[in-house]
Amino acid sequence: LEQKIERQIFQEMLRTNKKLFDDTILNFLPASTNTKEIQTLYEMMRDYPSRGGKGVRGSLCVLFCELFSGKKDNALTTAAALELFQNWILIHDDIEDGSEMRRGQPALHKKFGVELAINAGDALHGKMWELLLTNRDQIGIDVSLDILEEFSRMLNETTEGQQMELTWNSSNEWNIEERDYLLMVTKKSAWYTCITPSRLGLLLSLSEKDSDLSKNSRFAEMMDQTIEFGTNLGIAFQIVDDILNLTADESKYGKEILGDLYEGKRTMMLIHLLRTLDQHEKSKVLGILSKPRHEKELGEMKSILELMRKNGSIDYAREIASNKSMLGMRMFENLVRKQSELRPIIYSQTKGLLEYLTSRDY
Amino acid sequence: LEQKIERQIFQEMLRTNKKLFDDTILNFLPASTNTKEIQTLYEMMRDYPSRGGKGVRGSLCVLFCELFSGKKDNALTTAAALELFQNWILIHDDIEDGSEMRRGQPALHKKFGVELAINAGDALHGKMWELLLTNRDQIGIDVSLDILEEFSRMLNETTEGQQMELTWNSSNEWNIEERDYLLMVTKKSAWYTCITPSRLGLLLSLSEKDSDLSKNSRFAEMMDQTIEFGTNLGIAFQIVDDILNLTADESKYGKEILGDLYEGKRTMMLIHLLRTLDQHEKSKVLGILSKPRHEKELGEMKSILELMRKNGSIDYAREIASNKSMLGMRMFENLVRKQSELRPIIYSQTKGLLEYLTSRDY
Repeated sequence: LEQKIERQIFQEMLRTNKKLFDDTILNFLPASTNTKEIQTLYEMMRDYPSRGGKGVRGSLCVLFCELFSGKKDNALTTAAALELFQNWILIHDDIEDGSEMRRGQPALHKKFGVELAINAGDALHGKMWELLLTNRDQIGIDVSLDILEEFSRMLNETTEGQQMELTWNSSNEWNIEERDYLLMVTKKSAWYTCITPSRLGLLLSLSEKDSDLSKNSRFAEMMDQTIEFGTNLGIAFQIVDDILNLTADESKYGKEILGDLYEGKRTMMLIHLLRTLDQHEKSKVLGILSKPRHEKELGEMKSILELMRKNGSIDYAREIASNKSMLGMRMFENLVRKQSELRPIIYSQTKGLLEYLTSRDY
Repeated sequence: LEQKIERQIFQEMLRTNKKLFDDTILNFLPASTNTKEIQTLYEMMRDYPSRGGKGVRGSLCVLFCELFSGKKDNALTTAAALELFQNWILIHDDIEDGSEMRRGQPALHKKFGVELAINAGDALHGKMWELLLTNRDQIGIDVSLDILEEFSRMLNETTEGQQMELTWNSSNEWNIEERDYLLMVTKKSAWYTCITPSRLGLLLSLSEKDSDLSKNSRFAEMMDQTIEFGTNLGIAFQIVDDILNLTADESKYGKEILGDLYEGKRTMMLIHLLRTLDQHEKSKVLGILSKPRHEKELGEMKSILELMRKNGSIDYAREIASNKSMLGMRMFENLVRKQSELRPIIYSQTKGLLEYLTSRDY
């Protein structure tokens, strides 16, 4: 019972935060104009932000700020900008990956065409920086600029990770080492899902205090530690997300089930499968995966999934995710030991969020 | 002779500035890494910035800074970021417009595919903000943030203009009023070519002085005036650019001649032509223009060009460009009257640049 109540409180916290981010974003984005073509742009910019999602990255940022004794209010703009980051980059990712669905609806480029969707992504990207500039008055000019630098780093990492994955796709490269996969996932996913949200929360906790703390060596050390724990948890998150794409119930999932197999996405499961197949089976699987998306048949996708089950690829990936997750959680405990005593409720919510990220069953 | 020498000095000024921007950009962008996929990303990011171009927007920013008694050194980072803006947005524009050539070489997406080119554009976009953040130490935190806000405004305007043009293309809309065309061109072209470079130069001139000047009402008035003069000159620039696409010598031009007709670009000439054709001729021309690009034949494009010549559409557009240009120059003279006496050489170079922008013959 206690666990059930705790879970309800946690879900309520996520919902409340998500509402705050949505309000910030939808109040900030332009809504109406007299020029009908531009009106469509505004509708496109508001489309993904209006589609739901759980706001986990923004919540992680807010919780880290509070955990280090910062004020939640000071973190909301930055957390909303994190959510905006995800929205604009998903618009472009969906084009680049050939994804058809996003959060239960057709991807933006499926609704409006690739050309307009690229442009709307750029416009939304610009709005992310513009929103961050409004921090200036609320949290001070120094922390505001540090935050802009964090976003800049996050964008570098994310585009590098995306480049790795896209290159594997476009050059039909299947011979991928686990090490390369882990580097790709760290860049493409861990940075914007775990590392940067934590770092932002830490920085935002400074806005109320003497900003010289940011020059403090203990603070610099903590900022470094977010990279270590966030890398491990971010990898675990992505592996779990990829497993869900193979195993989840479509009605709850929002994206296309087996979509990753249709897209030929390189996942931990696929790397394991290709490693464990004999030469004959491997050629057959690669023959299927290398076909253009529209020539792939559901039966073929299901046969690859079946092979993954048979060869233990999903269990193997789950095991790696679990190890990375445990290691990451230990590093997290280590980083926040002092704060966990000072702020036990926030601590338990942050821990709950990180556990949720790396062990979702929907 | 005197005119020839003046022209040489002017060209030399442009070349010198361009070299400074290129050095700033190419030293700032990442060059090498051990991961081969990311190495390709770095090469893609450096591709357009290495292709030449004249750097007119950066030079306009530098000259405005100097004209208002600012230091050239303080303007270089911002001017280079303006050039970066043009580079990343051209990567995306070339995809959106289906352009095949850029500065004498295949467009980036023609070399690397659309997926990687979208991502490289995003990565370069991120680098623009990152470069602007380095202003912090050199010109102070307040002016740095004002500059970020100017870039944000510029991006809003540019994406809105692009949306208008793309919507006309995708909805096969040819019934365009001159008023709509002028709004589109103001947003898509005048802001980033004239208005924002001038505003940035003005702001940068403050970095050496009491930053309270930016709250001065005369300063705010001047910032407003840049919008008026920049709109007129920016429109003139775009019309002249579009005329060049029809009439220039391909070896000097760098882009595909008649490319705008292949792309079905709505220009002042085309709007005039469609207005002056009888119903029969108009249907025929629209039939040709509405065809997919690869079905268009050179002979058809030349026949439309011939109709434009015959109906005076090019002369009409040139006349509008000339009127806008004269009006804009008068506004410019008015804005900088005091500075033109204080700094006659910089004044004459700035004037030369604005005249060059709106009356290029190559």
